[in-house]
Amino acid sequence: MSSPPRDLAGLLFGRRLRTDEQDAQKISALAGIPVLGLDALSSAAYGPEALLTVLLPLGAAAIGYLAPISAIIIAILLAVFFSYRQTIAAYPNGGGSYTVAKENLGPHAGLLAAAALSLDYILNVAVAIAAGVGQVVSAVPKLLPFTLPLCLVILVALTIVNLRGIREAGLVFMLPTYLFVGTLAVVILIGVAQVALAHGHPIARVRPPSPVASTAAVSLWLLSRAFASGTTAMTGVEAVSNGVPLFTEPTIKNAQRSLTAIIGILVVLLAGVAYVCIAYGITATAPGATGYDSVLSMMTGAVVGRGWFYFLTMVSVVCVLCLSANTSFADFPRLSRLLALDHYLPLGFAHLGRRLVYSLGVIVLAVFAGILLIVFGGITDALIPLFAVGALLAFTSSQWGMVAHWRRVGGPGARRSLVINGVGAIATSVTLLVVIVCKFTEGAWITAVAIPMLYAIFLGIRSRQERVARELGEEQPDWGPLPIHEAKPPVVIVPITRLDWVSRKALSFAVTISPDVEAVLVQTDDSDTGVDRVEALRAAWGELVHDPCQTCGLEPIKLVTLKSEFREFIPPILRHVREAAHRHHDRYIAVVVPEVVKRRWYDILLSGHRPTILKSLLRIHGGPRVIIVDAPWHLRQNNRRVDPRRAERRDAGRDQGDANEQSRGTEERGGIVGTHPEEESR
Amino acid sequence: MSSPPRDLAGLLFGRRLRTDEQDAQKISALAGIPVLGLDALSSAAYGPEALLTVLLPLGAAAIGYLAPISAIIIAILLAVFFSYRQTIAAYPNGGGSYTVAKENLGPHAGLLAAAALSLDYILNVAVAIAAGVGQVVSAVPKLLPFTLPLCLVILVALTIVNLRGIREAGLVFMLPTYLFVGTLAVVILIGVAQVALAHGHPIARVRPPSPVASTAAVSLWLLSRAFASGTTAMTGVEAVSNGVPLFTEPTIKNAQRSLTAIIGILVVLLAGVAYVCIAYGITATAPGATGYDSVLSMMTGAVVGRGWFYFLTMVSVVCVLCLSANTSFADFPRLSRLLALDHYLPLGFAHLGRRLVYSLGVIVLAVFAGILLIVFGGITDALIPLFAVGALLAFTSSQWGMVAHWRRVGGPGARRSLVINGVGAIATSVTLLVVIVCKFTEGAWITAVAIPMLYAIFLGIRSRQERVARELGEEQPDWGPLPIHEAKPPVVIVPITRLDWVSRKALSFAVTISPDVEAVLVQTDDSDTGVDRVEALRAAWGELVHDPCQTCGLEPIKLVTLKSEFREFIPPILRHVREAAHRHHDRYIAVVVPEVVKRRWYDILLSGHRPTILKSLLRIHGGPRVIIVDAPWHLRQNNRRVDPRRAERRDAGRDQGDANEQSRGTEERGGIVGTHPEEESR
Repeated sequence: MSSPPRDLAGLLFGRRLRTDEQDAQKISALAGIPVLGLDALSSAAYGPEALLTVLLPLGAAAIGYLAPISAIIIAILLAVFFSYRQTIAAYPNGGGSYTVAKENLGPHAGLLAAAALSLDYILNVAVAIAAGVGQVVSAVPKLLPFTLPLCLVILVALTIVNLRGIREAGLVFMLPTYLFVGTLAVVILIGVAQVALAHGHPIARVRPPSPVASTAAVSLWLLSRAFASGTTAMTGVEAVSNGVPLFTEPTIKNAQRSLTAIIGILVVLLAGVAYVCIAYGITATAPGATGYDSVLSMMTGAVVGRGWFYFLTMVSVVCVLCLSANTSFADFPRLSRLLALDHYLPLGFAHLGRRLVYSLGVIVLAVFAGILLIVFGGITDALIPLFAVGALLAFTSSQWGMVAHWRRVGGPGARRSLVINGVGAIATSVTLLVVIVCKFTEGAWITAVAIPMLYAIFLGIRSRQERVARELGEEQPDWGPLPIHEAKPPVVIVPITRLDWVSRKALSFAVTISPDVEAVLVQTDDSDTGVDRVEALRAAWGELVHDPCQTCGLEPIKLVTLKSEFREFIPPILRHVREAAHRHHDRYIAVVVPEVVKRRWYDILLSGHRPTILKSLLRIHGGPRVIIVDAPWHLRQNNRRVDPRRAERRDAGRDQGDANEQSRGTEERGGIVGTHPEEESR
Repeated sequence: MSSPPRDLAGLLFGRRLRTDEQDAQKISALAGIPVLGLDALSSAAYGPEALLTVLLPLGAAAIGYLAPISAIIIAILLAVFFSYRQTIAAYPNGGGSYTVAKENLGPHAGLLAAAALSLDYILNVAVAIAAGVGQVVSAVPKLLPFTLPLCLVILVALTIVNLRGIREAGLVFMLPTYLFVGTLAVVILIGVAQVALAHGHPIARVRPPSPVASTAAVSLWLLSRAFASGTTAMTGVEAVSNGVPLFTEPTIKNAQRSLTAIIGILVVLLAGVAYVCIAYGITATAPGATGYDSVLSMMTGAVVGRGWFYFLTMVSVVCVLCLSANTSFADFPRLSRLLALDHYLPLGFAHLGRRLVYSLGVIVLAVFAGILLIVFGGITDALIPLFAVGALLAFTSSQWGMVAHWRRVGGPGARRSLVINGVGAIATSVTLLVVIVCKFTEGAWITAVAIPMLYAIFLGIRSRQERVARELGEEQPDWGPLPIHEAKPPVVIVPITRLDWVSRKALSFAVTISPDVEAVLVQTDDSDTGVDRVEALRAAWGELVHDPCQTCGLEPIKLVTLKSEFREFIPPILRHVREAAHRHHDRYIAVVVPEVVKRRWYDILLSGHRPTILKSLLRIHGGPRVIIVDAPWHLRQNNRRVDPRRAERRDAGRDQGDANEQSRGTEERGGIVGTHPEEESR
């Protein structure tokens, strides 16, 4: 921990963590609130707003329905809370909807929940960042043209923080989270106090605009839609149950404490906002129209005026809106790891990265959210209706899963638990139905397409991966003894163009692996690149190659000339290799490709890439017995910056060793074995 | 020639041509006119227009200056013509400005001419296509939004035609060229006849708009600028001298005939246009303003009315404007080939492609012209002032080079030749000066930056290429005997993750090239991807690998486990390879990388790319004694479409053989040598 990071990756992501440092990355119940609770808590900022916006056509009458609808949402929230408390206890290794549904309702139910959640996580990142940036640009209209860049900057920052590890994310997000909760609580408290002092008729410091005239009568449909919009407040509640293993010991207790704190704060904030809004007569203003002001902004202005505290509150709201994306970053990688272990995703998703997070999951989440942001230009209003469906679908499968769990487990206490989860299951099922019906035309039907699509993709990946694994014989039962009978040396073919040092190195390696080496020279008969060179090489071959081989007691290297009437270089070589494979049906054909390693852009631009193309074609079309050998030659200039002392220092501090640099040590300065011209001539 | 093309490349570019078919690709004097003369001939369309546009401020008085300025330009043209006739005779292998200036004035003068010409060729392609498309979209304003796509489509079409070979281009462009010359000649003839019949006062069928009121007095400056604009008519004249070897025998005579025809037609057209314009009182209209009409369009309308013949003429003008880009396509590849042979460009520019043209030059020209078109959105008016400078600079160096040539050669006739080239040299020098001065502020200063920059780039490329060649020992004098002393077998390292068929193949190859083989297994200690797998493999190693090796009398393969505390796979392997290189300082280290060859996009997406990354890092950082061996394993599904009968047919028709397909023959179906599981299990 003492050594400072030495490279860019170190600076960005922090030093690499050893696997046994995993415990040090766990988080306390308190840190759990910013890491896993931001998505839920930020609901307090947009839930009431979403609800009231739907009620806009009712005019001043809207305010009368805020209390009952909020009460219903809080009641469902509490039902879900008690359910998830039990899930945490029952699944200490992480009881996300995927796991619970899979284990109790079967793999397909689990996969469906996983598809719904994955979609929800990706949408959440895009929508949350866009919502936060939307608040910023509406406050500072000059920033409006930079909406998308701002979104992407925040996305990248979130990605980096999350790649630095869960613990780091918790620490970074602690301050804005508590600032948000604190300022909002203060506003609500002052509001409640003023209501009490004014006997229920407080005078607003800053008068909210009077409600618009009523344009519609109240209807069950309108109220249902308001409820459906309000349920966005429920997204993010499952995060803790999915992330149980992130907590320090006692894991279950800490996770439950964290969940209790999150839901407790959320309920208080939701109830408080509703109470203060009713008391001050605050309804929504039409979004997008001039004079638009958010409900939270009007409420804060009404209670404390538009002083510094107002601005502090608004800043914390914006921060929390943006950061609520973080819950996805904490949970999606864990979900994708589980899917990878079940082969529904590539195994890379289960690989713990340098900071002990599942880095690939973090990156893939960021990429998809980034695509959404770019496609929608940073304005994701159209995505909001899709938002709650995934989460609620996952909740529902999880709750029914728990019901099945208790029925299976049985025993004392199971009955009580079953009832609790049953209530949760029914509540979320009904909510899900209402949301789907109410929002179907607004775009929720897209979810109905996207979730089955994701589900099918997961299944497809699994089937493909299992098929490949079967063919490769990855499963231990398939392992038989290594198939070697007699080790005939390979036929070695070395395509050369002249006898430069690159070809020499390839030839000098070739003779160490087989007595059967042939150098292959393509002869084109156009005058510029052709005949003379070939003749010169043929003339010199005996003295330069044949004789030295014989002197060392080696089988001499044959020189084969291939005529190329179409002036092509690669096809004649491929044909020759194929013929060799045909002739020697019981031997490997090793094609040693001499190649200069170029690392400067201008060298890469100036070179012909023939070796690279040859190697690719041999790989793809070479057939099963063709082996490609890459004999790289390093230009002296490439290694100029190697400083022997630096290399030694690096050797001393081995555990810090970066592969990139370690491999360029001092002792590496031999060239071709025996003469060392590659770098010693420096 | 009988067999139809079988693949996309064959369809687009035609069958491959053998080197000995070169003669069949040569062109006659008549075909030389469209191939090498389009740039010059199209000048008849825009030269008078450019000239008259500059004179616009003079109003009706402009017409009085058309005759003298045209006469001067024609005179210079004739001087240049006689000069180039001599150049053709003196340089039968192609006497482009580069060659002539290099051989007579030294390499730096040659390079300067080459830089000027290269720039001019690239500009010509962009400007010519944009001019043609500009005419089309002004006739059909609906196409205006598609200006850039239209330009790019034409560019791609021209590129393909030119990649099909010089001969093909000549045939394709023959019709529009002769249509252009024919229609214009008819218009001029009728015009002249009408002038004669009307005793010098013909009545226009369609009255040209009356000249705008005069806004400026005549001045030398204005006339010089008109002259400078008119000299654009001279670009493209050097094309024939550069392309002499393209002609059939007798090469020199045919080239001279072609040049004579081109210049003759051009002079007649220029003089005719001037005469008719003067007789009908046609001046330019302000470009870009409403009511704009091109000089050629007004002239044709005045002489023959706006019937079908008018439209035919206009269509041929548009075609020729676009196709005048073709001269660059014929000449730039030849110039870049010469530069490549002198190491000023990569040698690939000197490689004769499948249709016996220098394909790389064609492609690079198209790419640069495409970039210009895209940057300027298909409207290249801003580039026109840059246009003539490069061509005139090249002319001038070529002419002075010829002067130096005759002085050096001496002998009978040289004096006369010297005078002719001297006149040409002085004429072009003066013209160049006038053009530079008159157009400097209009943008010609950019040429003053771009030409030296290109010049410096050529020099830089040469210096870099020579440096690399020296280091690689490419020159024969450096060739010493092959440095092999004793052929110690390499140390072979095979990184594996399990004992699947991919690893088995790698191991079974490894034992054929060295007795020192170690399999390297990276052990990460995170539970998901780690410990169990390693333990299982270690337990099975003796039975599955060690014993079979001993049975065959081979040195057993060692199993080395590398602990990776940071859960990385590649750095521990790199470190291990480096340590091996350190321990065995007189041996090669061959790292055999097992890899599944994936050819489907979803397989590539699902795989981890670890082997590819490992190979790249080994190549770049492996040090001089590390050899990378690629043991590819082909998924059975990849080869599903191989049909044995097709493969045999392919073998029969060998000369048609495409490398791509030939290498997937029937006899290739062995897998690992000895057991053949890779494809036989199909």
